[in-house]
Amino acid sequence: MKRLFDIDTWKITTNELDKANKRLQESLTAIGNGYMGMRGNFEEGYSGDTHEGTYLAGVWYPDKTRVGWWKNGYPEYFGKVINALNFIAVGIEVNGETVDLAKNDISDFRLELDMRQGLLNRGFVWKSENGETVVRFTFQRAVSIAKKELALIRIEAEVLDGTADVTFHPRLDSNVTNEDANYEEMFWTEVARSIDTPVRLTAKTIPNPFGIEQFTVTAAMMNVADGLEKTSSNESPLLVEETFNGTIASGGKLTLTKYVAIVTSRDVPEEGQAAVAKTLLAEAASKGYDSLIAEHVAAWAERWNRADVKIAGDEEAQQGIRFNIFGLFSTYYGEDERLNIGPKGFTGEKYGGATYWDTEAYMVPMYLSVAEPRVTEQLLRYRHSQLPGAFHNAKQQGLKGALYPMVTFTGVECHNEWEITFEEIHRNGAVAHAIYNYTNYTGDEAYLLTKGIDVLTGISRFWADRVHFSKRKQKYMIHGVTGPNEYENNVNNNYHTNNMAAWTLEYTLESLAKVSDDKLAELAVSEEEMAQWQDIVDHMYYPHDATLGVFVQQDTFLDKDIRTVDTLDPAERPLNQHWSWDKILRSPFIKQADVLQSIYFLNDRYTWEEKERNFDFYEPMTVHESSLSASVHAILAAELGKEDKAVELYARTARLDLDNYNNDTQDGLHITSMSGAWLAIVQGFAGMRVSDNQLQFKPFLPKNWQGYDFKINFRGSLLDVAITGGEVTLKVVEGPALNVKIFEEVIAVNGTVVKSLIEVE
Amino acid sequence: MKRLFDIDTWKITTNELDKANKRLQESLTAIGNGYMGMRGNFEEGYSGDTHEGTYLAGVWYPDKTRVGWWKNGYPEYFGKVINALNFIAVGIEVNGETVDLAKNDISDFRLELDMRQGLLNRGFVWKSENGETVVRFTFQRAVSIAKKELALIRIEAEVLDGTADVTFHPRLDSNVTNEDANYEEMFWTEVARSIDTPVRLTAKTIPNPFGIEQFTVTAAMMNVADGLEKTSSNESPLLVEETFNGTIASGGKLTLTKYVAIVTSRDVPEEGQAAVAKTLLAEAASKGYDSLIAEHVAAWAERWNRADVKIAGDEEAQQGIRFNIFGLFSTYYGEDERLNIGPKGFTGEKYGGATYWDTEAYMVPMYLSVAEPRVTEQLLRYRHSQLPGAFHNAKQQGLKGALYPMVTFTGVECHNEWEITFEEIHRNGAVAHAIYNYTNYTGDEAYLLTKGIDVLTGISRFWADRVHFSKRKQKYMIHGVTGPNEYENNVNNNYHTNNMAAWTLEYTLESLAKVSDDKLAELAVSEEEMAQWQDIVDHMYYPHDATLGVFVQQDTFLDKDIRTVDTLDPAERPLNQHWSWDKILRSPFIKQADVLQSIYFLNDRYTWEEKERNFDFYEPMTVHESSLSASVHAILAAELGKEDKAVELYARTARLDLDNYNNDTQDGLHITSMSGAWLAIVQGFAGMRVSDNQLQFKPFLPKNWQGYDFKINFRGSLLDVAITGGEVTLKVVEGPALNVKIFEEVIAVNGTVVKSLIEVE
Repeated sequence: MKRLFDIDTWKITTNELDKANKRLQESLTAIGNGYMGMRGNFEEGYSGDTHEGTYLAGVWYPDKTRVGWWKNGYPEYFGKVINALNFIAVGIEVNGETVDLAKNDISDFRLELDMRQGLLNRGFVWKSENGETVVRFTFQRAVSIAKKELALIRIEAEVLDGTADVTFHPRLDSNVTNEDANYEEMFWTEVARSIDTPVRLTAKTIPNPFGIEQFTVTAAMMNVADGLEKTSSNESPLLVEETFNGTIASGGKLTLTKYVAIVTSRDVPEEGQAAVAKTLLAEAASKGYDSLIAEHVAAWAERWNRADVKIAGDEEAQQGIRFNIFGLFSTYYGEDERLNIGPKGFTGEKYGGATYWDTEAYMVPMYLSVAEPRVTEQLLRYRHSQLPGAFHNAKQQGLKGALYPMVTFTGVECHNEWEITFEEIHRNGAVAHAIYNYTNYTGDEAYLLTKGIDVLTGISRFWADRVHFSKRKQKYMIHGVTGPNEYENNVNNNYHTNNMAAWTLEYTLESLAKVSDDKLAELAVSEEEMAQWQDIVDHMYYPHDATLGVFVQQDTFLDKDIRTVDTLDPAERPLNQHWSWDKILRSPFIKQADVLQSIYFLNDRYTWEEKERNFDFYEPMTVHESSLSASVHAILAAELGKEDKAVELYARTARLDLDNYNNDTQDGLHITSMSGAWLAIVQGFAGMRVSDNQLQFKPFLPKNWQGYDFKINFRGSLLDVAITGGEVTLKVVEGPALNVKIFEEVIAVNGTVVKSLIEVE
Repeated sequence: MKRLFDIDTWKITTNELDKANKRLQESLTAIGNGYMGMRGNFEEGYSGDTHEGTYLAGVWYPDKTRVGWWKNGYPEYFGKVINALNFIAVGIEVNGETVDLAKNDISDFRLELDMRQGLLNRGFVWKSENGETVVRFTFQRAVSIAKKELALIRIEAEVLDGTADVTFHPRLDSNVTNEDANYEEMFWTEVARSIDTPVRLTAKTIPNPFGIEQFTVTAAMMNVADGLEKTSSNESPLLVEETFNGTIASGGKLTLTKYVAIVTSRDVPEEGQAAVAKTLLAEAASKGYDSLIAEHVAAWAERWNRADVKIAGDEEAQQGIRFNIFGLFSTYYGEDERLNIGPKGFTGEKYGGATYWDTEAYMVPMYLSVAEPRVTEQLLRYRHSQLPGAFHNAKQQGLKGALYPMVTFTGVECHNEWEITFEEIHRNGAVAHAIYNYTNYTGDEAYLLTKGIDVLTGISRFWADRVHFSKRKQKYMIHGVTGPNEYENNVNNNYHTNNMAAWTLEYTLESLAKVSDDKLAELAVSEEEMAQWQDIVDHMYYPHDATLGVFVQQDTFLDKDIRTVDTLDPAERPLNQHWSWDKILRSPFIKQADVLQSIYFLNDRYTWEEKERNFDFYEPMTVHESSLSASVHAILAAELGKEDKAVELYARTARLDLDNYNNDTQDGLHITSMSGAWLAIVQGFAGMRVSDNQLQFKPFLPKNWQGYDFKINFRGSLLDVAITGGEVTLKVVEGPALNVKIFEEVIAVNGTVVKSLIEVE
């Protein structure tokens, strides 16, 4: 655990420039607007250790696969969202000295991410080498959520002592590479550049041999100076730049405002991009910086108004949940149906920025509540449209049906480690389960019966071919898988995988009974096929230990040297940074518990006793080194009345990045686990469930908290739920009245209802 | 299966230039002398698909590791024997037209590898584009086994029609790369070149960040022409060349003889190389081509005289065994203690050319019989000298003791797929077993008690740390391994691995009881340590199925969809080229059978019934897609009286490359499985064993054979063993008399003894 920033309920702030943890600071101060974003890099550049990264949603490149030894079935490329042009850059010189915080003598450093307003602010006092000139610099940066193509930067220089000859070099620079490029390739090539106003650069991704489209991006900038004069414009391959200069004495102030517009071929064909960018800039300039910022701040206020979670009495917890909501909304707000949610959002390179099962397992449950059903349906449609890719993936393994990929942009698998690509197939269960989840939450079967059933049928056909029948045990088995617990690989009969496979087959059979005759004919599911599916459902093998009364996460798990996490030397954690892979695989320690993931997904199929026995057995062996782990465990702990454990795990998921629990946030934020904190509060502490069309809560208040308050969308209503020590207050803020079950009592909520918790419990 | 060459007992010949299988032809016509060698590339070059490769023993480069996702414990580099300068090259033009068999109109093509003489001969009749000029070219090439640094090439051009203006460009060309370079790097840089006589090129491997020595190689050539004149000398970076020209009419003949000397920094420091090469060439030229070839041929004759295996009545089998002996001796003849035996020898790139467990498991048993004990002891000392590397490897995994590497030059692991590097640890058992094998065969414990015990103790310490105690089963287990059957990965309690671990501990304890007090003190094995080892020996877990009466190759093998190879569609074989890795891993099909490997190693620990039950269970599921597989299975089949199966498997191992059984010989020959044919005959058909210092045979004659005859070294004697339908003839060719057991009868052999097989059996 490492905490760089102060505790503040709305801000991420520090007064220390932590050079040793610069990359971590950059991750934690990333901003984005769903369309583009960047790490918290410094406008003026930084010559020390830094990871510069700017990303444009959906602009990716199929990097040639890199493996040790090729294995049949591996994909040919690993798609990755690539580092795009640096458009925040503004080089700065004072009296000929380059401003570079890696080297300069500075004071009064302040870095502040204002989550409420969506603004990144920074400031410092700079002193010249001879000590005679002192200048205070302040920076403000935003990527507008009111106008997605716009980025705004304002830099002020205030002279505190001496005379300062200040030069600014605002630039657009596409000489950028990915740190994770497999073959150190440069992914960009220049199409055009212009130093006429507005200064503009058009770059295109290099060709590839896989038939993947090349993306063209045009960036244009307009720089407005106050107290400075434009002295020149410069250009070189993949770079355009203007230069502004001004000299002022002590007490004087200079301001540079940089308006940037980014247009990509995802929206505008290459030939039209320059004109669109120009128009965008003209509109922006006519509104002016303050108005644009005001629009942006107002839009953030509206988002917070609908989705803020308030926690009274625990500022760390409050900061944690807001940081997660901010990170999530900065990455995805359901505005572009062609996009999904990459694990690092706009904050880093790792994992390629593509779609993972995280979306279905962790994002869908939250977006169902915080957004219109349409947003979640987009996420489902995304998978439906990628069915051809899923068929392709299964075929690559010599199997029937649809195998959704581990990592993808198009539906075609990009990942290429056999134990993941070929084996972590429980992802297919998550994709199926999201369809159930959406249908169950919204009560609307239209998607299921028209499109969802295509996906379910494809996945069921995969499962039916992937199982084998063990003559010895007279059961269907699934060999050679990796469960959500990636600290075991290539195991047999992973409980969760077997469970989700059988569940998918069952749900598909149920759903097929409801579809139209036309649809049934289109799907061409034969009687024999359905009979086989039913046979698998009836005879699936589930490893179970009668003595312990637990489901066994895989066939030979109990043969391990079973011990709990408290026997570990804390210096060895996180294990994945201290132990060899061999040692990790053989150990009993769990990255995230497979059996508990299953109990989370299929919650109403287990008794309280089953839940408790399995939780008590597995959680103590779980190191939660997956960013996805803590939330699910927190929810189950809450359900089982293990309040301390639930709160501990909540803190871990809510402050995973802020406190760098897994010592890897320097690579970027864990965007797809950011829903975890929200789920821990809403499904955990508040005990929200939807079952048989009934919304239900079983709330409790964590010990150190005075209260918490959140809103959810449910079937056309916006419901505010506030919990304090003794009471739960329900309020329909928008939409029709709702019947809500609190513990076992159903209450009609029309306006505001207050119930004593003690009374109903 | 694909057979390109004719059946001939001493030659590999064809009259067809098979352009579609050029790479396969090149592999099968590779030559080498233990010091250097090359694929059967054409001197004049070839513009079609070809794989040019020349290799110098022990000249390697640590190529930067290439992996998908890094896992803790992976090595930093993958060492590989690199493609060295092409010194056979002689560009040829006739009347200004380049001779290039990919394009030219030729006839009377003949390619012939003469195994008896160690010569590669080639010829063809070339016709000019206008059809007016016809020239017969003949080539002869040798790498001398009489003078290892010398390569000899003679080219003759005989004009059959028209007038030919012939130009030869003999050259030394170090502009070469590896096809398997991880990052398409060029591994050579020029040190010096000279076009003064003798023309000379010195190149050096590029620097590396791993502290591995850079190798310098000097090649020098002297070209002697008959009917040609030297017209020029040319040079460019990494290339030197001379040009010879002559014009002749029909009936005339031109000859170019190219003498090449290769000197490397493994033997001669860079600064002395030019002088040494010059002296070598001067000596060679003074002897002359014919004398040098005669010396070389005589040396091969002596090798054959001591080690030829004669088979009467089966020319395919005869060609197969000779091809294997030729390939093996071309790769390694025990002359350089710093070298080991790379899986592809001088015939290709794959597997890096480094040391594998193949040496101990498959080479040692043969070299013990065909060479002086000194040669095998060298192979053991090679591992002893690399103990520090083995300690390093274990430490990389967080384990104690010594883990011998999967792939190495220095003892440090180079391989980097987790399921192999971290898991295929049975290799440690093979290294230990070779010490036993040597001691058992030679009867000499000196190596064991002075050096072998260091290795055994290191390996035992590894095993003792690598096992864990399963409380549930009250047994020691080994989880997370890959056995010799690489078609299962990351399995638990692989029978062979558990077996070899326990065996090593037991043998080490026995051996420790015999070492000197000084040695014991040096090893510092405590009483507690020995007690723990004994406890592991006493309580090791061996998966076993009582119903089937077989050892189970890993914990959950019997849960698979058990079926035999005859249920497979032949079109799907070899599986590794038709099935996804996922499908292979989950299938019951075996690359080479783990349990049978164990029974081969520890042969006298099993009853005949145990051997038979396990063979009958596993062999029918075995696809033998490891080059190492067929031999061991042939030996066991022979022991069990399954003569047809033994002969079938013999054919597969003996003609693995000649008939390209596994469809991968285009990448190079399977050098380290070449002992398999020899072992199948000697340990299989002849049933040779050494037990309690007694040499024993239980011979039989394969049905279609009329007889076979081989020689073995045993304790100072050279024994000739000849088997015919009814008789076995034993003859001590050199050294003292021997007592030999034939079936159950011990016979004193002094001179020649003939026994009727029917009588003794």
